Amino acid sequence: MKHSFGSDNHSGIANEIIESIINANHGFSVAYGEDPITKEVEDMFKSLTGTDVNTYFVFNGTGANVLAISSMTESFNSIICPETAHINVDECGAPEKLTGCKLIPIKSIDGKIFPNQILEKLVGYGFQHHSQPKVVSISQPTELGTLYSLDEIRQISDIIHSKGGYLHIDGARISNAIASLKISLNDFITKTNIDALSFGGTKNGLMIGEALLIFNKDIKANIEYKRKQLSQLFSKNRYIAAQFKAYLTNGLYLELANNANQMAKYLSERLSDICEVKISRKVETNVVFATIPLYLSEELQKKHYFYVWTEEINEVRWMCSFNTKKEDIDLFIDDIKEAIYKLKTDTNGS
Amino acid sequence: MKHSFGSDNHSGIANEIIESIINANHGFSVAYGEDPITKEVEDMFKSLTGTDVNTYFVFNGTGANVLAISSMTESFNSIICPETAHINVDECGAPEKLTGCKLIPIKSIDGKIFPNQILEKLVGYGFQHHSQPKVVSISQPTELGTLYSLDEIRQISDIIHSKGGYLHIDGARISNAIASLKISLNDFITKTNIDALSFGGTKNGLMIGEALLIFNKDIKANIEYKRKQLSQLFSKNRYIAAQFKAYLTNGLYLELANNANQMAKYLSERLSDICEVKISRKVETNVVFATIPLYLSEELQKKHYFYVWTEEINEVRWMCSFNTKKEDIDLFIDDIKEAIYKLKTDTNGS
Amino acid sequence: MKHSFGSDNHSGIANEIIESIINANHGFSVAYGEDPITKEVEDMFKSLTGTDVNTYFVFNGTGANVLAISSMTESFNSIICPETAHINVDECGAPEKLTGCKLIPIKSIDGKIFPNQILEKLVGYGFQHHSQPKVVSISQPTELGTLYSLDEIRQISDIIHSKGGYLHIDGARISNAIASLKISLNDFITKTNIDALSFGGTKNGLMIGEALLIFNKDIKANIEYKRKQLSQLFSKNRYIAAQFKAYLTNGLYLELANNANQMAKYLSERLSDICEVKISRKVETNVVFATIPLYLSEELQKKHYFYVWTEEINEVRWMCSFNTKKEDIDLFIDDIKEAIYKLKTDTNGS
Amino acid sequence: MKHSFGSDNHSGIANEIIESIINANHGFSVAYGEDPITKEVEDMFKSLTGTDVNTYFVFNGTGANVLAISSMTESFNSIICPETAHINVDECGAPEKLTGCKLIPIKSIDGKIFPNQILEKLVGYGFQHHSQPKVVSISQPTELGTLYSLDEIRQISDIIHSKGGYLHIDGARISNAIASLKISLNDFITKTNIDALSFGGTKNGLMIGEALLIFNKDIKANIEYKRKQLSQLFSKNRYIAAQFKAYLTNGLYLELANNANQMAKYLSERLSDICEVKISRKVETNVVFATIPLYLSEELQKKHYFYVWTEEINEVRWMCSFNTKKEDIDLFIDDIKEAIYKLKTDTNGS
Repeated sequence: MKHSFGSDNHSGIANEIIESIINANHGFSVAYGEDPITKEVEDMFKSLTGTDVNTYFVFNGTGANVLAISSMTESFNSIICPETAHINVDECGAPEKLTGCKLIPIKSIDGKIFPNQILEKLVGYGFQHHSQPKVVSISQPTELGTLYSLDEIRQISDIIHSKGGYLHIDGARISNAIASLKISLNDFITKTNIDALSFGGTKNGLMIGEALLIFNKDIKANIEYKRKQLSQLFSKNRYIAAQFKAYLTNGLYLELANNANQMAKYLSERLSDICEVKISRKVETNVVFATIPLYLSEELQKKHYFYVWTEEINEVRWMCSFNTKKEDIDLFIDDIKEAIYKLKTDTNGS
Repeated sequence: MKHSFGSDNHSGIANEIIESIINANHGFSVAYGEDPITKEVEDMFKSLTGTDVNTYFVFNGTGANVLAISSMTESFNSIICPETAHINVDECGAPEKLTGCKLIPIKSIDGKIFPNQILEKLVGYGFQHHSQPKVVSISQPTELGTLYSLDEIRQISDIIHSKGGYLHIDGARISNAIASLKISLNDFITKTNIDALSFGGTKNGLMIGEALLIFNKDIKANIEYKRKQLSQLFSKNRYIAAQFKAYLTNGLYLELANNANQMAKYLSERLSDICEVKISRKVETNVVFATIPLYLSEELQKKHYFYVWTEEINEVRWMCSFNTKKEDIDLFIDDIKEAIYKLKTDTNGS
Repeated sequence: MKHSFGSDNHSGIANEIIESIINANHGFSVAYGEDPITKEVEDMFKSLTGTDVNTYFVFNGTGANVLAISSMTESFNSIICPETAHINVDECGAPEKLTGCKLIPIKSIDGKIFPNQILEKLVGYGFQHHSQPKVVSISQPTELGTLYSLDEIRQISDIIHSKGGYLHIDGARISNAIASLKISLNDFITKTNIDALSFGGTKNGLMIGEALLIFNKDIKANIEYKRKQLSQLFSKNRYIAAQFKAYLTNGLYLELANNANQMAKYLSERLSDICEVKISRKVETNVVFATIPLYLSEELQKKHYFYVWTEEINEVRWMCSFNTKKEDIDLFIDDIKEAIYKLKTDTNGS
Repeated sequence: MKHSFGSDNHSGIANEIIESIINANHGFSVAYGEDPITKEVEDMFKSLTGTDVNTYFVFNGTGANVLAISSMTESFNSIICPETAHINVDECGAPEKLTGCKLIPIKSIDGKIFPNQILEKLVGYGFQHHSQPKVVSISQPTELGTLYSLDEIRQISDIIHSKGGYLHIDGARISNAIASLKISLNDFITKTNIDALSFGGTKNGLMIGEALLIFNKDIKANIEYKRKQLSQLFSKNRYIAAQFKAYLTNGLYLELANNANQMAKYLSERLSDICEVKISRKVETNVVFATIPLYLSEELQKKHYFYVWTEEINEVRWMCSFNTKKEDIDLFIDDIKEAIYKLKTDTNGS
């Protein structure tokens, strides 16, 4: 496939990443994360975040999210999250099965939830019949590509901390958020005071691998055993670590994310004068949502890969990747215009 | 590290495998196993096994084993396995937590269990107080490198089938078994009549990836959902599939396994005239177990990486890999002899 | 305590029930439901419901609900229920932990949910990333004492059946519903076409015990093992069965429920001319919800036991029981009037 | 059924117990263990054990055992127990499903396990691949009616404490043990230094109800939520508490247990001169195991209820209860003799 707007996991592996895998492939190495590359990347995360963070590599985003929840809860706890959260919608119930916890979904606006909504759910403490709220989990950027400000996250963090709980960030696309906010990772962590971050890589040019970062020292105990029991411990971990080593070196993670973000911005700009296409959500990272006529999505899907997100209103999702090029966008815009033109002439002619 | 006898997962990625990853890294591709390479490898498994097998790619061996058990059981079932089984000893309780099933470990001889032992445990059917036996799970080769004959497996398979249950093979090193038995994969499957096979790759030259092969059509239902909920579904699955594509092409999996097996054989031959070293298990695949004097293991561990397996008798495990070389063995033998010589002269001198 | 409006589980054991326990206490009896009284009651349920129902006795309502869900699902399924459902709010996450399933709560109106709301959630079938909707679970009467009509339930039942799923009724107070609707149990079951019913007893005069009734023959398999594994199998089950024997004889369950319902009706009538008290929900079974001034609830709670249900609007819940008496209500009304009078005179006097 | 040797849960409810239920049935009472009788019994346990014990009432033995394990472990822990343990054999895998922990069964001698066997299993600490041993769970008396001495238990307790773990006693028949050892409950607890005790009632004259006693203050946290989530919280708990109130008053629990024990002793004495019957285990509490000829067990089972325990050697189990009478034994002995006599004359005659 030449290019896909379907998902940023349709993209491949960035050159620097695959080279780092190749470079790591010399000789033998101890397994299960005891190797020097893994240790090196653990230090890089400490340095980049400016904290004494504990890093746990896992295979995928669901693994990172479930391990995060598992490390912060007992089975009688509940997890507050947006209705649209990946953990609520796209993990086939992994959090419930693997942690036993209840998810409490909150109606979200463009993927975001707000302090007053959360406060309403932080009730029933000490009442043995009720799941005890312990974690708020939000996505940054959200599933809809929108962003929380640092202040907004800090407010949520303060609220849940005041109840003795934790804030988890599902950062499957955290690099896109950091790049868009034009801040440092250090700033992101320290100004928001979050407890745990699923730091994604696969959607932004890695072949495979996510890192669960635990900032709160109260919750580091026993995560190794939980990771193993959740089947998320990798024997040849040097090959995940090697990818992260390249990813975190010289800001590659931001560079790749920047491209994806800019392509989404460029796409939204190019769409702005096509009146058949209405951009339906703020474009803050690497995705454009738009409502378009049915004939147009059908016509475009003959040549391009993307998803209809909300069927009722024919809202489509166009996602840009670290390796989306201006030409890919230009070609797409041409195809949109051609499809519109074709319909108009067909209609006129009939 | 130059060479390690610690484990075959200390070895790296075979050249053909890494090239196949590189080759797969062109353009965009749909995710979650809907890509053409995944489809191609699914067909390769059908062709190689000579069956209409269903293939489910996962991240690691624990993932494959747990998904296998999960697909064949309900939580009130029990799983019969050798006491030494990876699922019983080395997965930190993943099978129990993730399936709810009881494991019934059987005392094994060199890692193997036998029909009469299994029959003793196939009791309590229909009695609501007892976990209902449903699966026998054995490793081929065993955790101790030994092999079941096809007949031995077939007998176990017949027994558990007669009770309406299933036979699962943990084949983390299945290629070493097939290579050693000098049979085809087709023969292995059809003559043993097994129901499910965790087909390993990582320990024999893959970077990452295992395949759960389900042969019995009764147990294929809903495995996709279970894989997803167990956090074992990979978005960019083309990169696992690409590895298996190379692995299964022109018998690479056997070629790599053969080297590992032959190196173990060569090691055992070279050891045969060193009277301080007593080989303690049959050498049938890629591992040599031996009891050696304490001073010798301590001296060797200064320069070589390997594990003491049974402390009480100082039994050590030396594992060979797809990329272990004759020179690695020769060097190791030299170091053994030197250590022995050194002690003798030290002792004589004192 | 003389009388409590706190809950119908604050009430005691009805005389006929305790006598039946005493009568069952002769000699020895086989355990775990193999005794003749258990068999007899199983037949009574067949006869009363006019179906070939399978009956599973358990200890409590949570046990019945969890066993019901467990019997109808695999862990990757989801359960649709009102946000106010007992399984969602009052079981400390037991359904999630014990079945692994996701609960999908729907905003309810007076505890009820409706077909169009349910239809919106019956999506994502066949998509491996999404929990697969399998069960709708509603309470009859609802947690707010309101009732679904037979037609309303039948509509829900038809919808979920059309998707290959099941309808479960949490009937912790099912007798109050049946009594209020003035129908037979047979009619209730056959006209609604439900699949499973948690048939409660404890809240209506039993000492202990609930019965899970399974009407759909597709879902009876293996429930005995699941009940045992969920720790809900009672050794001396004749003593639960004996209670149900009395309960189901000569319509005792309806007689007891009728009293509770009528007392709630009488209470609501007596309240109707007290303008400080505003009845806030339809009174259809054995509970009255009302919004009252804060001073009034505080004053009343000095002498009477009841819960504030919705703090923001000071909505209180007054629940009547099988053994609530007219005098209890009259006394309560007197105390309400006295409290109001007291405040008025205090205020006037100041 | 007049009398059963099948199980002590075939017996009924002791008179004092049922009277206590009747006495508790006055007026209304708060639910879920907040009632005064529950509080009173909690104090009785403190007084009887001479400790500041925390008491958690549950429905049945499996519930007590699972709650105990759940309170002392995380899912990556393992539980060491005799192969014959109720938690290992007779709970249909409840501990594995409900706690996620691995059970490590040890070959037992007459139901007992010993320090050196346990020590062998207390390995792998700190190794992330292995379930971490945390609890030893033994039954007192054992499933085979035998007893540990206080010293034997203390040794086990010291061993597991030295590893930072806990000792749990499955005391489904603890009263029979205490009565037989002729010690006080206080002595039993303090001299053994156990951490948790499932204190049974149902097998010794209660209608329903067990109490989990937690002595170690480190493990009391959050048990209320776990009990609720495990579906073991009883709304009308005053009726379980009332039974325990009578049970613990004036040593009724010991009196009832004493009768059962003495009847087993009397049975074993009466059997001693019947050479066709060989008593096969020490008779230390309320059960007699014996190997008898096949024709004899078949003949006896026509008139008496009991189980064949070990089919291979036709070992039968005869269990006595709080309400077994001398006449029941005498009649049984008569029937044994008659059956033997009948066979002999039949044989002679032929």
